[in-house]
Amino acid sequence: MKTVLEQAALCKAAAPALAGLSAGEKNAALEAMAAALEAAAQEILAANAQDLSAARAAGTRPALLDRLALDEGRIGAMARGIRQVAALPDPIGQVVRGNTLPNGLQVTQARVPLGVVGIIYEARPNVTADAAALCLKSGNAALLRGGKEARNSNLCLGQVMGGALEALGLPAGALQVVEDAGRESAQAMMELTDYLDVLIPRGGAGLIRAVSAGSRVPVIRTGEGVCHIYVDQSAQVEMAVRVLVNAKCSRPSVCNAAECVLVHRAIAPAFWAAALPALAERHVELRCDPATLARVPGGVPATEEDWDSEYGDYILACREVGGLEEALAFIAAHGSHHSEAIITQDYAAAQTFLDQVDAAAVYVNASTRFTDGGEFGLGCEIGISTQKLHARGPMGLEALTTTKFLIRGQGQVRE
Amino acid sequence: MKTVLEQAALCKAAAPALAGLSAGEKNAALEAMAAALEAAAQEILAANAQDLSAARAAGTRPALLDRLALDEGRIGAMARGIRQVAALPDPIGQVVRGNTLPNGLQVTQARVPLGVVGIIYEARPNVTADAAALCLKSGNAALLRGGKEARNSNLCLGQVMGGALEALGLPAGALQVVEDAGRESAQAMMELTDYLDVLIPRGGAGLIRAVSAGSRVPVIRTGEGVCHIYVDQSAQVEMAVRVLVNAKCSRPSVCNAAECVLVHRAIAPAFWAAALPALAERHVELRCDPATLARVPGGVPATEEDWDSEYGDYILACREVGGLEEALAFIAAHGSHHSEAIITQDYAAAQTFLDQVDAAAVYVNASTRFTDGGEFGLGCEIGISTQKLHARGPMGLEALTTTKFLIRGQGQVRE
Repeated sequence: MKTVLEQAALCKAAAPALAGLSAGEKNAALEAMAAALEAAAQEILAANAQDLSAARAAGTRPALLDRLALDEGRIGAMARGIRQVAALPDPIGQVVRGNTLPNGLQVTQARVPLGVVGIIYEARPNVTADAAALCLKSGNAALLRGGKEARNSNLCLGQVMGGALEALGLPAGALQVVEDAGRESAQAMMELTDYLDVLIPRGGAGLIRAVSAGSRVPVIRTGEGVCHIYVDQSAQVEMAVRVLVNAKCSRPSVCNAAECVLVHRAIAPAFWAAALPALAERHVELRCDPATLARVPGGVPATEEDWDSEYGDYILACREVGGLEEALAFIAAHGSHHSEAIITQDYAAAQTFLDQVDAAAVYVNASTRFTDGGEFGLGCEIGISTQKLHARGPMGLEALTTTKFLIRGQGQVRE
Repeated sequence: MKTVLEQAALCKAAAPALAGLSAGEKNAALEAMAAALEAAAQEILAANAQDLSAARAAGTRPALLDRLALDEGRIGAMARGIRQVAALPDPIGQVVRGNTLPNGLQVTQARVPLGVVGIIYEARPNVTADAAALCLKSGNAALLRGGKEARNSNLCLGQVMGGALEALGLPAGALQVVEDAGRESAQAMMELTDYLDVLIPRGGAGLIRAVSAGSRVPVIRTGEGVCHIYVDQSAQVEMAVRVLVNAKCSRPSVCNAAECVLVHRAIAPAFWAAALPALAERHVELRCDPATLARVPGGVPATEEDWDSEYGDYILACREVGGLEEALAFIAAHGSHHSEAIITQDYAAAQTFLDQVDAAAVYVNASTRFTDGGEFGLGCEIGISTQKLHARGPMGLEALTTTKFLIRGQGQVRE
């Protein structure tokens, strides 16, 4: 078994060759990866079966077993995902800025790969294929560490895809799935400042917080979403209910789902009259402040903790506010800077909300569920950054690049 | 005396108001800051005199005294610098990307301020004015901590400029000069993750390393420069000497100065015949590998340490190489990813160097001294980033911004 350090060294050694690949070469490699996955489906399913039986024996809960499980359909989906990445424009070599200085120096700022990208994730083996494809397309070497529950599946996926790359003459370090699935291997990745250019945690809030707090390698923090829907006094009630139900219920487990509704006092009676049956139909538990509790039969009293909770479930925190200012202050205090929405027909209120909410995505009259690289037209998504440096909001391939100034002269010197 | 935490809280409270200022309001505030500095020149000089006499009493060396000293000319230069920042385009509100999705959602990605910018620097009081102006123009609150040797000067500059802002109705937190100049106050800034959005160290390598290693607030790492000039076999000797002399001698103390020359064996005799007198005239000490030592009368043997040194002085590390590959490997091992140059007439060598050197700025046939925001047409410079995330190379005002997705709908929900 190779150590994480040995695997990271392979990645670092591979990075210059990957940076030099043309878009055509990278797309051919991605196609080879996709075809290899399809051809090796039985082998992958056998490895996955080992993981599944170990997980079942350990009493793993059904939701996690479902994330872990592969079948031919899911392997086909991985291959299709890789081919979709191949179809995206190549960000590398794109000229961001350029000019000729008065002294004749030609200055070009061009996109280049970051180098080596580390990704730490949980039990979903499809992340292995997805991350491998995104890193390769952006010219980066990938060091991937999935959860230990998926160890056999991930190693098999790595062998199959890595084998396809090596058959094309690419270095083994282009794709390394971490062989040591122990807890120490994640810690080791966080210390590899000489090898990794960035570390991206993908998964639940606990994982993301642990990596953000513990890593000496620069981290792109993704995904934590405590998103609010503020129903303004001037909102159309039907629209407010439709958006809230979509934001809460269309996929409660994801980070762009709403966790809390703030309702203007003046519209609260009409809003709750329409919202209650729609939420009850979907069995949404309502955790309410005292004012809302008085309007909402069947609601339960909210605790302080509820205002900061990412439930990931059919639970909604509900609070009444006296106006826009109070809603803005509440969001500033309790939001996670991910996605926030106002429902309003008031132009000034919409503009104030857009201007003053400090979040990656701020909505007027639409569901927070749209915060997604695919929806926003980025073609793919590495994650949704909730930090301000480097990338904010849904990240496409560009987030896996940096730039380099290239300066061509004829002997110029500075005065 | 306010604590760092109290001052940071003032900054955080001021950030939303600053984010909402128009370019006209910010430019008027900058003009007021510049005029206030000019009007308060005597007061500033008196505060500076206190710092200078304390520094002299402490036996401070002349170079540092010079950096610390202000006079009317230098105060005038600070005011001019602030007016130059006022003349720059406002980055805030710039639309980076935008489109209307098939469902009618209007998506706009716009530049917004980071929020609160912390800057830790050394004994040059002019950084106080410079940093204050750049932060204000980019809509950020500034928490500035200069070296304790300049404490009186910096506090006075902060009062004068901050007073001008408050007279215009801006919040006190727009500009805070840290009152507690103790070592702990720098450490405290590095822990203020709830208050500071970024921390930028400006100064020597020791400061930058300490802040990068110690900070929990995201850092933009600037300035360390171990820059090389590689003189290829095909170089024009006269050009190579001219560029090297400029890169080494025009201002040896700065980060874009060259520290090491790599000379192709085949051109070494001709190169050194021309370079030696030019370098001797400027009293440059040559620290040489054995091959170069044999060609260079008066050179001294280099130690291993020399290959990684940022001398900041009239000292040059000199090494002979067998070819481009060896030069590239040496730069990869010893460069600081700042600025690297090749002198060549060979098209393929130039292209290979541009492609393969992993640095913020890569030059063909020009001096590394051009790596500078002003020279590159960015209008100003917050520093030169040697990291890959967020910003790389000379940073203009954009580096003090992030973006926000603004989404305007009519009740859209996600399928």
